[in-house]
Amino acid sequence: MSERLVVIGGDAAGMSAASQARRRRSEDDLEIVAFERSSWVSYSACGEPYHVAGEVDPLEALVARTPEQFASRGIEVHTRHEVVEIDLDRRHVTVHDLMADRRFETGFDELMIATGAKPIRPVIRGRDLEGVHELRTLDDAADLRRIADRGPGNAVVVGGGYVGLETAEAFHLQGWDVTVVTAGTSVLNRTLNSKLGQTVIGRLESIGIRVVLSSRVECINGTDRVESVGCVGETFPADVVILGLGSEPEVGLAQAAGIGLGETGAITVDDHQRTAHEGVWSAGDCAEAMHRVTGRPVNIHLGTIANKAGRVAGINIGGGDATFPGVLGTAITKVCDFEISATGLRQNDAVDSGFDVVVGEATGTTTAGYMPNASELTIATLAERGTGRILGAEIVGGPGSAKRIDVFATAIWNGMTAQDLAWTDLAYAPPFSGVWDLIHISARNAARLALA
Amino acid sequence: MSERLVVIGGDAAGMSAASQARRRRSEDDLEIVAFERSSWVSYSACGEPYHVAGEVDPLEALVARTPEQFASRGIEVHTRHEVVEIDLDRRHVTVHDLMADRRFETGFDELMIATGAKPIRPVIRGRDLEGVHELRTLDDAADLRRIADRGPGNAVVVGGGYVGLETAEAFHLQGWDVTVVTAGTSVLNRTLNSKLGQTVIGRLESIGIRVVLSSRVECINGTDRVESVGCVGETFPADVVILGLGSEPEVGLAQAAGIGLGETGAITVDDHQRTAHEGVWSAGDCAEAMHRVTGRPVNIHLGTIANKAGRVAGINIGGGDATFPGVLGTAITKVCDFEISATGLRQNDAVDSGFDVVVGEATGTTTAGYMPNASELTIATLAERGTGRILGAEIVGGPGSAKRIDVFATAIWNGMTAQDLAWTDLAYAPPFSGVWDLIHISARNAARLALA
Repeated sequence: MSERLVVIGGDAAGMSAASQARRRRSEDDLEIVAFERSSWVSYSACGEPYHVAGEVDPLEALVARTPEQFASRGIEVHTRHEVVEIDLDRRHVTVHDLMADRRFETGFDELMIATGAKPIRPVIRGRDLEGVHELRTLDDAADLRRIADRGPGNAVVVGGGYVGLETAEAFHLQGWDVTVVTAGTSVLNRTLNSKLGQTVIGRLESIGIRVVLSSRVECINGTDRVESVGCVGETFPADVVILGLGSEPEVGLAQAAGIGLGETGAITVDDHQRTAHEGVWSAGDCAEAMHRVTGRPVNIHLGTIANKAGRVAGINIGGGDATFPGVLGTAITKVCDFEISATGLRQNDAVDSGFDVVVGEATGTTTAGYMPNASELTIATLAERGTGRILGAEIVGGPGSAKRIDVFATAIWNGMTAQDLAWTDLAYAPPFSGVWDLIHISARNAARLALA
Repeated sequence: MSERLVVIGGDAAGMSAASQARRRRSEDDLEIVAFERSSWVSYSACGEPYHVAGEVDPLEALVARTPEQFASRGIEVHTRHEVVEIDLDRRHVTVHDLMADRRFETGFDELMIATGAKPIRPVIRGRDLEGVHELRTLDDAADLRRIADRGPGNAVVVGGGYVGLETAEAFHLQGWDVTVVTAGTSVLNRTLNSKLGQTVIGRLESIGIRVVLSSRVECINGTDRVESVGCVGETFPADVVILGLGSEPEVGLAQAAGIGLGETGAITVDDHQRTAHEGVWSAGDCAEAMHRVTGRPVNIHLGTIANKAGRVAGINIGGGDATFPGVLGTAITKVCDFEISATGLRQNDAVDSGFDVVVGEATGTTTAGYMPNASELTIATLAERGTGRILGAEIVGGPGSAKRIDVFATAIWNGMTAQDLAWTDLAYAPPFSGVWDLIHISARNAARLALA
């Protein structure tokens, strides 16, 4: 008799799981139906800033696969359908058809919870004024694109994380005066230590993006639409405000159904993406993942993790046996031609996890120093004192800098020491690095400190 | 009593060794004197094509450190001094001062042989005509720069290796009609399998560099100076000819002194860069190095290896204890905006070494497919059948492609399998890769074939 898989949430984790399950089980064996609250499935949220910047057009370019394409592969997808309740005992979900405004119940044998994350919404007066936006959904991206297109003015970005900086770049590229306001003492402070964060800030300011640190937004002012953003001691004129205050796991449904949450506030899963409930799976921004360095659960909202964990869930739902190997939180971005990346633990997190650490820093150039396109590159290698084991790394610099982080990710993945990485046979030609890549030099510095 | 280190050869391996020995032993403890046949020490041969192309100027930009700079650090360097004999019994070398044209003997306690490599010189009629060049020394680079500058004409590059292609690019960029003639069935065939070699050829032709395969140069024609290059069945007009037929280890001196050569024809050393003779060391292009995948000695002429092995020798001469960890032969180049890299074993070499192999190939884009600067990228992962252990990788593609090879180098360094690499937490943002990097997809394909 055929089984039924219900997928809640139609983006990376959910649709990866659906696709993998379908590859392994025929339509006769497994019916697959996915419900998605928004109008879109399987889209690249990470690409949205580049639509806002006018680099990626049309918006549909960000959609990897449409509901029709899923249908042709035997996966039924319903957009504008919100699952509003999970009943684990009776094994059904209640779905709200948002267009028809009606509710119905539908049963499942297997349930994939991929509800993702929701933006953190500050309680600020004026938050609902016209001209105040988030950048999360494709609809948000379309709105911001229209605004950016209408021509330059003042844009205030609230929040100094990845989405904040990428949106700041998008408006900057279209001639807007951009101010980034953050409560933090630096930018990207969930991934970079403050020292490299300062380098990023210097670079943002050098291209004309103003950065205001340690400043909390108190109110957003305007009558019909936004006119300014008020912080303690200063008010910033604003024709558009983008709130980029990060996100938290969307776990209301799961929690109401009695599905266990972990210490991070996200859904607890094992290394097969199983929750504690038979036939109930979860992956992506709403679920925990094991950090390979600490061995502890984390909840990091990255498309890479959602795709991988969703794939694992789908293979297992499909009858295979896949194990999610854990995460390092590797992340990367750029602002104009300045690149930023990090992997593993930040120094503070490592200390909090009980590691005694050293940081091997090196500054040099992206290419051989004599090449005309050489630009500055800084790498910081975090290693454990005594053993030299690499725990994390951060990179900031010009074009060609940031993807070097993958070497550190691979090194940490393998439990490599800084002293070993310092001799690894990496590629060299003058357009690509010095004869000793700055990776080597940073690792060597870390090893020297770690073994001193 | 003070000891004396004599270094034969003043480029990467020799001067790395000298520098490291000096860091560890004072001038009172160790006198260091280096003899270099040419006019230059410590220069970047790899940077020469970019001087020819006019990108790096002046020529001196390619010199990392001058004899005067070495002198100020207590390292005596004599250029235009050729060591012509090593006497191991009496522990001295005979030096020919090329400027004064006189010979003298000088003693050593420690001897570092870093004689490097010499170009393979074909026996071809007309080889000594004016306008026929190699690109090995800085003087060669200066000559070719002057010729390239004199304005466009026909350039014929003989040889399809790295130096050949980089020189072809240099002349192409300055408006010359460039033809690359090689006896091989592909280009870069010491590092790329023929399939990706064909991709490179397609790219060269698309930018207007003609590639003639399987064609042996029979003669170089001209009266005062070169006029054409004659191959079987076809003659190519030539205002300049660059011979890039590879290089062989420069071991004449060592051999004459009775220092053992290995199966590759280069000097046999242990993992501390010691020859079989007490106090006699060697490193760089003239010495063997252990390949980490096969465990067998190889002789690969790369600045990366020379620098690392020279450093190891110098640390050990200085009283430290460094072990050379072996090589993968990681190499990289570019021709205009097309990038090429490889690491580990080629398919043919792996088979010759007794491996049963599979190749997981993947073609995609350098960035997310929807980004405006997305360009094609192909990665081939070579893995061992049955285990999935990664043995090698090759990459060709647009900007941002080739440095990905460092991930494979790090993976192979750690004995990683393709199935493990396929899940590694690599960095993703749309300007840098797809959400699954093509590394993942290529590794996944290799794993599937290896474990089938």
